[in-house]
This record gives sequence, structure tokens and C-alpha cells, in this order.
Amino acid sequence: MVQTLAKEQYFYAFSKKNKVGLRVPSGSQVVVETFDCFQNQIQSAETGFNAIDWNQINPATGSIFVEGAKPGDILKVKIDKIELGDMGVLATGPGLGVMGHRIDEFEVKMVPIVDGKAVFNERIQLPLNPMIGVIGVAPEGDPVSCGTPGAHGGNMDTTLITSGATLYFPVFQEGALFGLGDMHAAMGDGEIGVSGVEIPGKVSVTLEVIKGKSIPFPFLENKEGVAVIVSKATLDEAAKAAVEIFVDTLLPHTDLTLPELTMLFSAAGQVQVSQIVDPLLTARFFVPKSILEAYDVKLFD
Amino acid sequence: MVQTLAKEQYFYAFSKKNKVGLRVPSGSQVVVETFDCFQNQIQSAETGFNAIDWNQINPATGSIFVEGAKPGDILKVKIDKIELGDMGVLATGPGLGVMGHRIDEFEVKMVPIVDGKAVFNERIQLPLNPMIGVIGVAPEGDPVSCGTPGAHGGNMDTTLITSGATLYFPVFQEGALFGLGDMHAAMGDGEIGVSGVEIPGKVSVTLEVIKGKSIPFPFLENKEGVAVIVSKATLDEAAKAAVEIFVDTLLPHTDLTLPELTMLFSAAGQVQVSQIVDPLLTARFFVPKSILEAYDVKLFD
Repeated sequence: MVQTLAKEQYFYAFSKKNKVGLRVPSGSQVVVETFDCFQNQIQSAETGFNAIDWNQINPATGSIFVEGAKPGDILKVKIDKIELGDMGVLATGPGLGVMGHRIDEFEVKMVPIVDGKAVFNERIQLPLNPMIGVIGVAPEGDPVSCGTPGAHGGNMDTTLITSGATLYFPVFQEGALFGLGDMHAAMGDGEIGVSGVEIPGKVSVTLEVIKGKSIPFPFLENKEGVAVIVSKATLDEAAKAAVEIFVDTLLPHTDLTLPELTMLFSAAGQVQVSQIVDPLLTARFFVPKSILEAYDVKLFD
Repeated sequence: MVQTLAKEQYFYAFSKKNKVGLRVPSGSQVVVETFDCFQNQIQSAETGFNAIDWNQINPATGSIFVEGAKPGDILKVKIDKIELGDMGVLATGPGLGVMGHRIDEFEVKMVPIVDGKAVFNERIQLPLNPMIGVIGVAPEGDPVSCGTPGAHGGNMDTTLITSGATLYFPVFQEGALFGLGDMHAAMGDGEIGVSGVEIPGKVSVTLEVIKGKSIPFPFLENKEGVAVIVSKATLDEAAKAAVEIFVDTLLPHTDLTLPELTMLFSAAGQVQVSQIVDPLLTARFFVPKSILEAYDVKLFD
């Protein structure tokens, strides 16, 4: 029987001190229920800034203790299925996102999900791209707020984190202490207004420990290729670090020199933006599967 | 008869002082021949750094004087067709690109184009994405090297600049003084090693003056949507400016408030990377066509 972790078992920061809500063997499938990023506090467009308890923001459901996971291992997280609620919410406001310097008041917009579309208004129905904004493991040192991304994952707000994708996290604490939340029914790369179509939901994941391999930042694999997802103080730093980490990860698996692999990545690798609005900014470097297959590279298995 | 501008009619900087190689009425189709970005100096993998005349880099073929174009107008450039040569070249070196701090010597790699693929080595054949690296008009003030991007276009190194796409440039000088060069047979977003698969070729473009509309940076339209392409000192600045320019461009065409349009763009617009290796860095903000169509917006026609 697949175990379910209820959304009421949440935390606001990834931390080695988080309570364990579920303990599972490596290889287990788990269903994780989630609040939206406002902990479901916004139920109408009239919800003002002061009606929201800003201490109840970005809950992640967890922690899940995965047996056998030790610092220095990798936690592999396959996203099997995402189910969304039927009402989403967008929000923006002063000081938030790219346009926050020109916005005077906090504003929200209810976005019903109807027939597989996010209904923005009577003119615009957006296609859904369901994704998980916050997902990760307990970090090495101090707790990290669920609003911030990092080497442990967290608020990476990456559109590729969707069903069918597999994530690889560095493990920093025994049991990994996995959690996720902050689902979006739709979001564009950049998340420029500070929110996607925020929505509660339910995610099925399969959690597996990989022993004897380490990574410095989360990686993601999908049908098209592999990306490393890096968060830094600026987009420039995040993008450059993502490239360099991928170069150093792949180089030993090939017969290429560093300049050769750099040239190959220049021709065929993609620098992509995840989000530019959180306390750290997130970029990714994506390498098509054909390059990994040409060298018969399995990075993590 | 379609006129052709030979590649020998080139310049190294976009400038109001550039010689006019061809003068055409608005609406003309023109074929533009191009050197590669090394002015075809690299013909073998043994070409060392000192064998290259670094004053002969990034030639753009031009200028083309488009009759009727005045400062404050828009030059519309439809890319009808791109034809590539049969031998490309990749290059990287110390201080160049993202990995330049760890590369000791300038290195080149010849990349033959065979059966519609770029042959990197015996294991790897890359799919082609033919594109134009340098394209633009004479800038407002001082000449701008063809290695640098800006409001006038120039070295934007943007993968979307390919056949079927239409570019819109602000006109700063009478006749616009259009030029293009620096074609790539393949390049990834970011161009992380400082070169794509550099290649000579031939481009058919249709040049048309749009009167009475101004834009602050180049826009691009393709089947999927519209992007504004912005170059700044950092990727962070370029990305944010691209978002804000698109917000300000679209807002008057809708009945949305600024916060509403910001939320819409957060859910459905895409921050994308063009290149992170040139003297200014280039990002773009891409908005799907369905949003423009919902408000029946024709931005430039």
C-alpha cells in the first residue's frame, strides 16, 4: 500500500531538526498532499495584504526520512504524478518580483482550473504546466526557509520539475529529510511577478537512495536531457556555476579535453532561467540526452 | 530580380558612417552573403591564436540603406531563408566564455556539415539550428563593434534569429544602415564557450520600414510568439529590463492593470537566455502568441 503524508505535516524551513512525518525504505512510493504557498489562506480576490498571516507562507509537506540515506549520498526522486486542486491564485505586490517597484498595492487574482486550463479572465485561458515550486532535503548547516533555494533544493521554482521528471539531490543529513510544496498549475520561466498560479494538490513520488555518488547541486533528468539547477545571489553567477558544474560532472565520463567539452556545450547545451524573484536566483544548464548517450554515460545509476 | 550584397562589402562596427553597399526601397528582398565570424581565416584545426588577424573578426555584410527609414521608425526584417556553407568551426580559449578561466590555450575544432548534421566527432552529430549571430542597424551615437550587442541589435547571438522569424529594430539613422553576419550552424542558448558552430553562408531577408512606431530594443516574432531582446552589463539587468519593456509595450493594448499584466506574464511569459559571453549580456522575454491574439494586438503592423 502506498503511504500518504497529509498536508498538515508541514514545515516552513528545510532543517535537520524537522520532525519526521513519515519513515520509508529506499524505493518507496509516497503520496504527498500539499497546501498552496499561502497555506490556502487566499480564497477570494478581496483578500488584502493584512488579512494574510505572513508567517504562514511556503509550507512544505514533510519531513520524509528515507532509510539508508547518509550525508554524501544522492536522493533520487521520481515524480510519478501531480494532481491539482480546482482553484489557483496569482499574486503580486510592492517590492515583489520584477515589476514590484511600480506596484502600489498587494493584489491577488483567483484562477479557476476548468477543463484543463487556467482561466485568467474571459479572454485568456492558459495551458497548464503543473509543477512543484519547493522540493528538497534538509541542508548541511542552518535551516533554510522554504522561500529560498539552494544546494539542498528548496524554492527552485523550476518549470521542469513536473511529472515524468526525476530529481537528484545531495544528501546532507541522515534520512535526507525530504519535503515538497508550493505547487503551480502554470508558471513561466522567471516567475517574474513572484507567483505562479499557486494551487494545493497531491504528488506521487518514488524515493530512492543512491550510494557512493555525490553532487554539489540538484540535477534533473527528463526525456529530453539532464539539467543541473543552481541558485546564487545573481542570475549571472547561477548560470556560470551551472555550466561549470555540468562540465566537471561530465568530463571524466568522456575522452574529451576541457576545451573540447566546452565547445560541445557551447554548440548544444542550453542556459535556462528558472526564477529571478526569490532571495537567491536560479538558473539551469541543460544538456540533451543524445550527448550523454554518445558516451554511454549514466550519471547517477 | 533579387539583389545580392557580396560578403566583401563588410564592416566591423555598426556606424552611421558606414559605406552604403546597397540601396533598396522598403519592401525589398535582398540576399546577403556572409563570412564566418573569423572572416574565414580558420580553415584547419591547427590554426593557432597567432595565425589569426584579430582585427579581422566579426565582419557584418552591409550597410544596406532602406529608403524611407528615418530615426524613430522601425525596420522590419523578415528572415526568409538561411543557407550555410559546408564547413563550420568552433573555438574557445583563455579568458573567453564561461570556462575561459580554466583554459590555457586557444583551441579550434573544424565541424563539417554532413547530411544536415554538424559532425563534432565520430560519436556526436549535432542537429543544426542555423541562426544569425550579428544583425542590426546603425546605432544612435558612436560606432558599436560587431562583437557587442545593444539597442541597435548587433551581436545578440540569439537562437530564435532563424528562418521564418521576423525582427523589428529601432531606426536611429536615415536609411537604417542594416547589416548582418556571424552565422551559426548550431548554437545553444548562452553560447557558453564564446562561439557557436561558426560558418559562412547566405541569408535572404525582406526589409520594410514601419512608420510612426518606436521601440527601445529589438523585438522578434515567430510562429509561437513575440520576444524582446535586451542586452545589458549583466544577465540580471538584461532579464529584468526585457520584462519591463514588454510590460510597457503591451499594457496600452489591453484593459489590464499593471499588476494584472504582471501576474499574467508571471504565469505565461518566459525569461530566456540568448548569450552570456559577449561584452554585454543578452536576455529575452518571450510572450506566447495566444496572449497577443486574445487582445487582438498587432504590435508593429
